[in-house]
Amino acid sequence: MRPKRVAFQGERGAFSEEAARQLAGARIDLHPLPRFEQLFQALARGRVDYAVVPIENTLHGSVHENYDHLLRFQLPIVGETHVRIVHNLIVRPGGRFADIRRVYSHPVALNQCLRFFARNRRLRPETFYDTAGSVKMLMEEAPEGAAAIASAAAAEVYGAQILRRSIEDDHRNFTRFFLLARKAPRHPKGGDLKTTIVFATRNIPGALFRCIGAFALRDINLLRIESRPLRGKPWEYLFYLDFLGSVDEPRCRKALDHLGELTDLLHVLGCYRRGV
Amino acid sequence: MRPKRVAFQGERGAFSEEAARQLAGARIDLHPLPRFEQLFQALARGRVDYAVVPIENTLHGSVHENYDHLLRFQLPIVGETHVRIVHNLIVRPGGRFADIRRVYSHPVALNQCLRFFARNRRLRPETFYDTAGSVKMLMEEAPEGAAAIASAAAAEVYGAQILRRSIEDDHRNFTRFFLLARKAPRHPKGGDLKTTIVFATRNIPGALFRCIGAFALRDINLLRIESRPLRGKPWEYLFYLDFLGSVDEPRCRKALDHLGELTDLLHVLGCYRRGV
Repeated sequence: MRPKRVAFQGERGAFSEEAARQLAGARIDLHPLPRFEQLFQALARGRVDYAVVPIENTLHGSVHENYDHLLRFQLPIVGETHVRIVHNLIVRPGGRFADIRRVYSHPVALNQCLRFFARNRRLRPETFYDTAGSVKMLMEEAPEGAAAIASAAAAEVYGAQILRRSIEDDHRNFTRFFLLARKAPRHPKGGDLKTTIVFATRNIPGALFRCIGAFALRDINLLRIESRPLRGKPWEYLFYLDFLGSVDEPRCRKALDHLGELTDLLHVLGCYRRGV
Repeated sequence: MRPKRVAFQGERGAFSEEAARQLAGARIDLHPLPRFEQLFQALARGRVDYAVVPIENTLHGSVHENYDHLLRFQLPIVGETHVRIVHNLIVRPGGRFADIRRVYSHPVALNQCLRFFARNRRLRPETFYDTAGSVKMLMEEAPEGAAAIASAAAAEVYGAQILRRSIEDDHRNFTRFFLLARKAPRHPKGGDLKTTIVFATRNIPGALFRCIGAFALRDINLLRIESRPLRGKPWEYLFYLDFLGSVDEPRCRKALDHLGELTDLLHVLGCYRRGV
């Protein structure tokens, strides 16, 4: 059997690559792509078997673009995982801390290491398009006095060296990823299943209360609610909802039927095992 | 009386400047600042009397950074307005369409004019840090074959010329702005008042349903709910809620008391007249 083709956003060594390995195993054929939309397109056109997309970070919140793509492409969510974001100071092999003047990385990563820069005022942060990409650039172009901030995997992929580990300000920094497939397999069985749906309420008083009630009144636990603007209808919203349970459970099916009575739009985006 | 000092983000001629004029009048002392956080800091330190901050766009959704600052600084919301985002193709006085090769603007603005670029394949979009800033640059540096995309106000402020009006793909593109003050004045009286609050639910089943019920069961209309990650508690959330009504109305005060019984954190961020 040929290895599964898995698309992820960023360069080799990106945090998304770690998520891809957690979700799809070690023996996979990796397809790094520059933009999120390309992951959905590649999967929809059958160029890959799976796509791994970040959906939420515990410091920054939702990756809204990917919520929008979930609705537009309706490629089913079949798995979920969490990756702890650990930033490392990386140099070319043999590089010394005393020689570093500039530190390259994605602006979000630089912003998550402010205390490190405050303690080392000699180091100037320099923005780069990608964390792992900054390590790749270090190895290819060998700029003088330069280091990068990226994952340990990026150091390994490009043969670079880690000088300081875990220099991020907040260690409670996790990103949640979804594994998307082209077609939903039979729904998983057993406990700890989650379902993600999207709906638009009718514009009536108490609409959201009634919608959430379809779950609360059946003791179904909501894990997350996220609102996004409804295109073409200013100041109206779509809601993305994660709940504990499977669409195969009768009480969840009934809650979804009930929700259908209250909404103008309702889609099940996936039913999958809860990430750990 | 000296004119009110009003801070906004961006260069002179930014859409935020239009919001500032709608919210604080024509006779104001404008304080443009580069970053959102600086608006809150300038207001907190008394360097300005008001700050104008974008909170939500009908195409892109919430400006999350500003939601986070609302909680951190707790500077009261005292007004609200909506600005329609109209993009114009702008050149130096006397510039001709046939001579344009490159078009500078903020990446979000460029992305909102994709059909214009598809119809005019000769024009290459070039990213710039700010919409109005791209007009300023045009006038100061006079790069050959260059145009900018920005507001009509930006063309006026810098003495540039509009060649094509309203080139944005979607005319239903509005941004909602808040006017923030240092201290809440007496709450406004009359109809069409809104209140914005932030709360964190206790981590119990049905928590969000109960919280929203405090309003729904009193026939108080919710206009918006937005969730943000709770720092230091991965996968727990803060909720920002807008409802129709004033904290001076007994039923709203009772709803807030009721909500207080159900939450770990609850702040009223402002009570203000609804924007038009």
